[in-house]
Amino acid sequence: MATAVSPLAPKIFPDLPPVEGVRFATAEAGIRYKNRTDVLLMAVDAGTEAAGVFTRSKCPSAPVDWCRKVLAETGGKVRGLVVNSGNANAFTGKTGADAVRLTADIAGRALGCRPEEVVLASTGVIGEPLDARKFDGVLADCAKRAAAQPWIEPAKAIMTTDTYPKVATATVKIGGVPVTINGIAKGAGMIAPDMATMLSFVFTDAPIGAHALHSVLTKFTQTSFNAITVDSDTSTSDTLILFATGKAAARGCPRIDSASDRRLTGFKRALRALLLDLAHQIVKDGEGARHFVSITVEGATTNASAKRIAKSIADSPLFKTAIAGEDANWGRIVAAVGKAGEPADRDRLAIWFGDIRVAVNGARDPNYSEEATSAYMKGQDIAVRVDLGLGRGRFTVWTCDLTKEYVEINGDYRS
Amino acid sequence: MATAVSPLAPKIFPDLPPVEGVRFATAEAGIRYKNRTDVLLMAVDAGTEAAGVFTRSKCPSAPVDWCRKVLAETGGKVRGLVVNSGNANAFTGKTGADAVRLTADIAGRALGCRPEEVVLASTGVIGEPLDARKFDGVLADCAKRAAAQPWIEPAKAIMTTDTYPKVATATVKIGGVPVTINGIAKGAGMIAPDMATMLSFVFTDAPIGAHALHSVLTKFTQTSFNAITVDSDTSTSDTLILFATGKAAARGCPRIDSASDRRLTGFKRALRALLLDLAHQIVKDGEGARHFVSITVEGATTNASAKRIAKSIADSPLFKTAIAGEDANWGRIVAAVGKAGEPADRDRLAIWFGDIRVAVNGARDPNYSEEATSAYMKGQDIAVRVDLGLGRGRFTVWTCDLTKEYVEINGDYRS
Repeated sequence: MATAVSPLAPKIFPDLPPVEGVRFATAEAGIRYKNRTDVLLMAVDAGTEAAGVFTRSKCPSAPVDWCRKVLAETGGKVRGLVVNSGNANAFTGKTGADAVRLTADIAGRALGCRPEEVVLASTGVIGEPLDARKFDGVLADCAKRAAAQPWIEPAKAIMTTDTYPKVATATVKIGGVPVTINGIAKGAGMIAPDMATMLSFVFTDAPIGAHALHSVLTKFTQTSFNAITVDSDTSTSDTLILFATGKAAARGCPRIDSASDRRLTGFKRALRALLLDLAHQIVKDGEGARHFVSITVEGATTNASAKRIAKSIADSPLFKTAIAGEDANWGRIVAAVGKAGEPADRDRLAIWFGDIRVAVNGARDPNYSEEATSAYMKGQDIAVRVDLGLGRGRFTVWTCDLTKEYVEINGDYRS
Repeated sequence: MATAVSPLAPKIFPDLPPVEGVRFATAEAGIRYKNRTDVLLMAVDAGTEAAGVFTRSKCPSAPVDWCRKVLAETGGKVRGLVVNSGNANAFTGKTGADAVRLTADIAGRALGCRPEEVVLASTGVIGEPLDARKFDGVLADCAKRAAAQPWIEPAKAIMTTDTYPKVATATVKIGGVPVTINGIAKGAGMIAPDMATMLSFVFTDAPIGAHALHSVLTKFTQTSFNAITVDSDTSTSDTLILFATGKAAARGCPRIDSASDRRLTGFKRALRALLLDLAHQIVKDGEGARHFVSITVEGATTNASAKRIAKSIADSPLFKTAIAGEDANWGRIVAAVGKAGEPADRDRLAIWFGDIRVAVNGARDPNYSEEATSAYMKGQDIAVRVDLGLGRGRFTVWTCDLTKEYVEINGDYRS
């Protein structure tokens, strides 16, 4: 198991300010391992509204089922979040649903709210029963100790195979009043269904209604968390929840109920950048990753078509191993375009590595320098651009390379 | 680059008898390397009919374009096949089409037939122009030397990263008259777009019309070559052609023009088994493969749905690395079922490794023995079975594990 920090990790971590109405504490509940922080309680003040997006897996975990249900029932009115690591509570049958209910009961008592006002996420091994009785006492103590800082603690508490905690922050004005957005994330495979599920939680003190939150979250997820891939595997537990405490209203911030409200423009831009930042941090902590790769497909018939082609390239093991080998093997890009099943005309394709055009009009670029390209491929950040020459569809996907370390990390995980 | 023979290679190679009306020779044309057999000419007698199935890639190679065109134009009447290794003649623009034409011209002169009666296949590097002038003289000499045996030679001539030649043979009766089927194949990734394109050529002396050949070939490809995956990557050049010389007619074999002719039953059964045998040999030569894995999905709503779920499991890097690690990580199977996007009910799933049921009714099987399963996973052949409990759809896919050697082989191929 690789434990060294990813070479692609950020060099500095930002200092996150408090978000009014948000407090938290972490603890050791002994879910799977002893002497390891494995539970996080985040308490949000009454009046908080939230929206979530979840895995598209047809076999979602019990906590994902729970979140979908309670967010729909309460219209997004939440008071708390409990996240545990060590056990995903996925594929655990009725036991899993019971464990979720018990966790929400214990958290509700600790926070003085209804169980349905608590959202949950679990990450860790699949198929093992989660003993939620271990949260008894632990969550009540967390609620008592809950503090507004330091934000690195919740980011650390949700780590599993991650090699560094993932945080991002932004300050932006709504109606002239400054509001804060803080986000944390975990994940080190787009997903591994064991310990590398993608989880992210974002908090703001802006007074934004749940419906508007859901609208912006869904939209920006498409070009951030849904535009990254480490290994094409989708977790049973992927969860992204955006909480708005509304506390900035006391400082004169207007309440926003529509995603298309013009006063939300700056907030949306900042949220979009923050989600992308967190998503990139997940890719940069991809298991065994040594290169960070952006793949832009343009000239496609539609944006959706561009996305499918970009994902086809990003998920191609042959492309990913070529990047690991620092080999500008554009033939593998052609093959990945071809297998995507989307409209493409071989004889109009052009391909770039960085600014170097290696192929044009369906053949090798006659002016292409193997030497310059080889030098480019040795860099840590690799930008691939493919122009299909058919239309105006465009999409960018981010991924990492496929190295022997990935195989090592995942070839012997459970034991 | 791993050059040792795959541990999954067959222990013995069958001796292939001649197929009446088929002769062949191999040569060194110096396409990419010196002192290496890199071209195969197969000559088939006048009256031969053929049918082919090709890559679904939207960026097919120039030889694939050619074969599709001439087989359609001539109604499958062919006189020869030329295969070269070292250069795939894919993504080579107009130069590629010109090279194909020139190759067919040279082969036609050598065989005394029209260029359109020659089918072609190329495997090797993508994007490099193929200098077909190198075939001049070489193919004429091959035509002169052409012999009916030994069949291991053409199988060797089309190898690239393959670690062993792939051959299969069967003898079966049509209308009481024995006919022969010989097949050769190459491939060592379902497909790597560089040197591991899947090619297979099957020859019989049975008098079967091109239309009937096409019908049986298309059908059996679904459950053989289209049911294997090494790395989910599809080549620009995949080619499978079935040739029937009809020579057995002289021995009283009836001519068959319909795939549903009852006299073809035994032939179809034998052909199906032969194609599956060759397909399995390709998986067993999968780059870096250490385990041969069958994945059977049953209880799906349809066979097509079962196939998509089985492929989702087979292509999951996390599943494949778990097999490499000899780890019975059924959680990754659940995740792969979930991400397939097909109808699945988490709480009805059951999963077996060999005869050991590890999960049932959406949770770990209470009687499951970790010890027995661990012992099973150390075997070379691993059978996975998933019952969705929804319907009668069923499909089996074959794959191999994902090892560090795969990354090594593909991480530095071009250089």
